[in-house]
Amino acid sequence: MALQLPRRVNIVEVCPRDGFQAEVNFISTAKKVELINSLSQTGVGRIEVTSFVHPRVVPNLADAAKVMRSIQRRKGVKYRVLVPNLIGAQRAIDCGTEEIIFVLSASESHNLNNVKKTIKESLEEFNTVVNCVQKNGLVDIHAALSTTFGCPFEGKIAKNKIVSLVKRLADLGATQIILADTTGMANPVDVAEVIEFVEQRVPINKLAVHFHNTRDAGLSNVLSALQQGITTVEASVGGLGGCPFAPGATGNIATEDLVNMLEEMNIDTGVNLSRLIACAILVEQMVGRELHGQVIETGRMRSKEDDCV
Amino acid sequence: MALQLPRRVNIVEVCPRDGFQAEVNFISTAKKVELINSLSQTGVGRIEVTSFVHPRVVPNLADAAKVMRSIQRRKGVKYRVLVPNLIGAQRAIDCGTEEIIFVLSASESHNLNNVKKTIKESLEEFNTVVNCVQKNGLVDIHAALSTTFGCPFEGKIAKNKIVSLVKRLADLGATQIILADTTGMANPVDVAEVIEFVEQRVPINKLAVHFHNTRDAGLSNVLSALQQGITTVEASVGGLGGCPFAPGATGNIATEDLVNMLEEMNIDTGVNLSRLIACAILVEQMVGRELHGQVIETGRMRSKEDDCV
Repeated sequence: MALQLPRRVNIVEVCPRDGFQAEVNFISTAKKVELINSLSQTGVGRIEVTSFVHPRVVPNLADAAKVMRSIQRRKGVKYRVLVPNLIGAQRAIDCGTEEIIFVLSASESHNLNNVKKTIKESLEEFNTVVNCVQKNGLVDIHAALSTTFGCPFEGKIAKNKIVSLVKRLADLGATQIILADTTGMANPVDVAEVIEFVEQRVPINKLAVHFHNTRDAGLSNVLSALQQGITTVEASVGGLGGCPFAPGATGNIATEDLVNMLEEMNIDTGVNLSRLIACAILVEQMVGRELHGQVIETGRMRSKEDDCV
Repeated sequence: MALQLPRRVNIVEVCPRDGFQAEVNFISTAKKVELINSLSQTGVGRIEVTSFVHPRVVPNLADAAKVMRSIQRRKGVKYRVLVPNLIGAQRAIDCGTEEIIFVLSASESHNLNNVKKTIKESLEEFNTVVNCVQKNGLVDIHAALSTTFGCPFEGKIAKNKIVSLVKRLADLGATQIILADTTGMANPVDVAEVIEFVEQRVPINKLAVHFHNTRDAGLSNVLSALQQGITTVEASVGGLGGCPFAPGATGNIATEDLVNMLEEMNIDTGVNLSRLIACAILVEQMVGRELHGQVIETGRMRSKEDDCV
């Protein structure tokens, strides 16, 4: 039986935030801006640019305001920033941010560990953030639900808990909720089951997915999510970032590997793969080491030229 | 909708042949035997041990006869060897081989390049080999169809051509036909379509798949194949081998990554993952470099102990 897949998938590029945040050596503002401007030329529809968290927590993104003010915004591309709280949201708005993303965990212990709040406190904070950004005219307010497919402290999270949290986030005003596999614990069967469960309460077009390739199941999880009707997928060029908790382990799925597989399946992404591979090579140069993306090494599958974007 | 997947998948471990054949430095016979004996303890049901090709073509497997005579055969495990022609088959039988595999390509130019024969000549050779091994009492005669999902010279191969070749191999006496993605060109949609097409002429339980992770789509292709009803999958511990044609590119899918994903989906493989990871680490030591398998780095997903095998 033929696989049931969407015709078009929206790619969200998270490297400038999720990739760079974990780097030990500071990436200069100029380099960050260069990468974001290059990504803007690939055809990708949304870029997660930076995060307005305290510089003590994420020193590599201490230049968030400067980055936001320096990038060239291209028409048709959405520039999203991560905010942890109201202060972050206000700082982001001051820099002309049009779209924010807020993060909380489906696991109580991971949330405490990650953002030093209970889930209840995080939901209250999200409510405050939503009120603030809506007052300032922002339309797109995303929420990422970490550890949706498993928590390193608590193991699997009950599906009922996932569903009620996603519903709550939607009710509070989240325009998109990202089901995130924070430490690469997802498998395709769980992915299918969780999405099937969630979409009974929240429309599928409000959902997105964010997988890690920690145990090489990243693209398989994407395939499963697409079969459930998901059409928005997050990834990071080169596969940079994303909580790789073992040396040599990959973190995020690599955007160029994802786009290559999707385009091979005749799923439209609107992304120019050659330009995307050039961005991945740029990231490799910036961080000074070989990354885990495969298509950087092997090249695209087809010989045909990209369409212009 | 829940994914339709088999309850049990048979793993075929190909590292000793497909992995070692590409190594530049000679792996000693003792080391090969150590790995094969260790693999025999993992619960894997079939191991591709070596290949009886001319030592000039594959110097690292020049000790095929010695390896076959030195390994400890464990009850319940099948030991398969690759033979390119009648001479190889006879040499294999002389060493007590119980199961052989023959390789030809779905692409004329790849077959000429790989085995210096036209496809017609390869089919004739296969016929001769089958007659010989059947006369010697061998029951399992496998055939691998290279470049099933694309050829580096010819691109996509027409599905009609694939189907007629698979049917011909089955008619000539192949008890299993392996659909092989020689250079990592497969994608999940093609995989589904090819298998759907083939199984109209050849029973699904006669088919197996062999994917490479060249562009990170290896496990996604497995997932697609399982959804079509395939229950036999080949892989190589550590991901060693498998025609990596770019430096840094992965070749075969790593058996431990495959088993981890399958077991996480509650698909029984009968394999003890901890022992398999130990084999992958052994291979890393033997070849003297870090391999691309992810679970070697991160460890298995669950904390539960393996069942004894």
